[in-house]
Amino acid sequence: MSFDWLNAPCAQPDAALAEAARAHQLQLTKPPGSLGMLETLAIQLASLQRTPRPSADRVWISVFAGDHGVADEGVSAFPQAVTGEMVRNFASGGAAISVLARSLGASLEVVNLGTVNDPGEIAGVRRAIIAPSTANFCVEPAMTEAQLQAALAAGAESVRLAQAANAQLFLGGEMGIANTTSAAALASILLHEPPSSLAGAGTGLDPAGVLHKVTVLERALARHAQATRALEPLRCLGGFEIAALVGAYIAAAQAGLPVLVDGFITTTAALAAVAIQPEVRAWLLFAHRSKEHGHSRLLRALDAEPLLDLGMRLGEASGAASAVPLLRLACALHAGMATFEQAGVSTA
Amino acid sequence: MSFDWLNAPCAQPDAALAEAARAHQLQLTKPPGSLGMLETLAIQLASLQRTPRPSADRVWISVFAGDHGVADEGVSAFPQAVTGEMVRNFASGGAAISVLARSLGASLEVVNLGTVNDPGEIAGVRRAIIAPSTANFCVEPAMTEAQLQAALAAGAESVRLAQAANAQLFLGGEMGIANTTSAAALASILLHEPPSSLAGAGTGLDPAGVLHKVTVLERALARHAQATRALEPLRCLGGFEIAALVGAYIAAAQAGLPVLVDGFITTTAALAAVAIQPEVRAWLLFAHRSKEHGHSRLLRALDAEPLLDLGMRLGEASGAASAVPLLRLACALHAGMATFEQAGVSTA
Repeated sequence: MSFDWLNAPCAQPDAALAEAARAHQLQLTKPPGSLGMLETLAIQLASLQRTPRPSADRVWISVFAGDHGVADEGVSAFPQAVTGEMVRNFASGGAAISVLARSLGASLEVVNLGTVNDPGEIAGVRRAIIAPSTANFCVEPAMTEAQLQAALAAGAESVRLAQAANAQLFLGGEMGIANTTSAAALASILLHEPPSSLAGAGTGLDPAGVLHKVTVLERALARHAQATRALEPLRCLGGFEIAALVGAYIAAAQAGLPVLVDGFITTTAALAAVAIQPEVRAWLLFAHRSKEHGHSRLLRALDAEPLLDLGMRLGEASGAASAVPLLRLACALHAGMATFEQAGVSTA
Repeated sequence: MSFDWLNAPCAQPDAALAEAARAHQLQLTKPPGSLGMLETLAIQLASLQRTPRPSADRVWISVFAGDHGVADEGVSAFPQAVTGEMVRNFASGGAAISVLARSLGASLEVVNLGTVNDPGEIAGVRRAIIAPSTANFCVEPAMTEAQLQAALAAGAESVRLAQAANAQLFLGGEMGIANTTSAAALASILLHEPPSSLAGAGTGLDPAGVLHKVTVLERALARHAQATRALEPLRCLGGFEIAALVGAYIAAAQAGLPVLVDGFITTTAALAAVAIQPEVRAWLLFAHRSKEHGHSRLLRALDAEPLLDLGMRLGEASGAASAVPLLRLACALHAGMATFEQAGVSTA
């Protein structure tokens, strides 16, 4: 394993197909632009999928789970055991993303990258165990180079599996107690923003808990102030599941597979991926604005206009899954509406 | 026919079922509140549908079409013939709402209340012709009392058909060249707002066209300044399709059938329905924030927080249809997620 693959070029969206899709939209029986983002989504997907008939029928969801050493600092409202417990819940169908994937007819892959409370072999869970958890980044770098390589590769492997299943759209999700702390640390260093503008309540901290989280972040950032180059922010402050998402997003862009980004953690991973390879940005669609404090800041940094704003803050790819029907409807409208000429409808 | 039925009492949402649904949500394996509006939607639907397992599987969509005398004033970017042409397009499956209804597996009823360019008998269109169009409300009241009665009754009939089909959710849509002018006039008188804060581009007026529309509205409002009581604003300034929507919303609330409101025109109808019967409000869910200028003002007046904000401004119930998958996912999550106890997941 090495980091070299990260530098392979990304696929290129097809500008001619975007233009053709835009022209097609103008022929459909509606005032121009009146379907709003349902029009721009269809145009964008036509360009990314390189087809005049884009589709989001075959959706692949990978949920990456991993534990965080920084949980030792008391930064989460839930105990660390929940990460492993939720891996089991994802696989047995009881978690939000399990229900959403079932409702959408989407493929759901659960990837265990290492949990303190290891649920062991479970049907429907891919074991790609790196370590029981990252190291506490208040004390030392979260990952070794080898661990970071393994996490990035685990994400890329999910994209290969998605491609083998002929997926038309990739959704990444995450689970990891304390991972909003890790994401806030990473975003803070990538955006040169103080942690207070990125730290939020996570799974449900009270205001005092958020203040404590900020002081933990300040210690971590002081400890890793030199970790600004290339993959160092991700290695020093990330998590296994965040690095896997970074690897997945880069691999998806290289493969030409559009990505629907979820919430705060995944958008941080998107930011890290784009920092490594700016061309990744073109392959990212943004599903929703999370209620987690700091997500709007990340969306702004990526010039992203998300589809939904429902006050969600669960992660697991739940916000991304909730937006999938909009992509499907956009594609159905693009393919199924009559033109003014076909329908014999007068134009303006 | 008479107006008496409008005063029959509305059904009552079930507060105990709302409370039980709220308690159930707290047991599910996620931080409390982390599914945002997907939680509150499920709770609201449980209360309205009077069941612990709400559902939006069986959706009924009625699109009401009618022409407007005020089109003579040159207030639309499209010619009046389009209303009748679109009735045919709805029925033959080429319109946006046709595609959306098909994608959702929803029942689509098209109701022709009167178009200048009459498409005649068409399979899939219910003819409830009142007149070729309303009168030009710059000159005289848009409707006679008998016409208003007929339009309100046509909407109520759609709710009866929806109930006969065991619908769990009612969506109303509209088509009628110049109907944003009618809706703006009606909203203006109901909200005591100047027309400039409610008149928008409709199907695509340029700024000069919008200014002209405002002057037309000012003339109409001066003409009908006394039409403030009871049904008079609707009779003098409404349209057949707007009155049908008012009748449908009131009938749905009386029948205990939840309604998903679409955009600018339908929200004006909702405002008129609530002005007649305040208890109608409890039965209304709001699908989206239209890009049509003035819709946000209407939503504020109804204290409505819509689900989507996608820059849509087509009407036809297209915004409402686009939000149906969110209701379905909310219901699926409510019914399908494991509790902390079932999944053996630790709590905060």
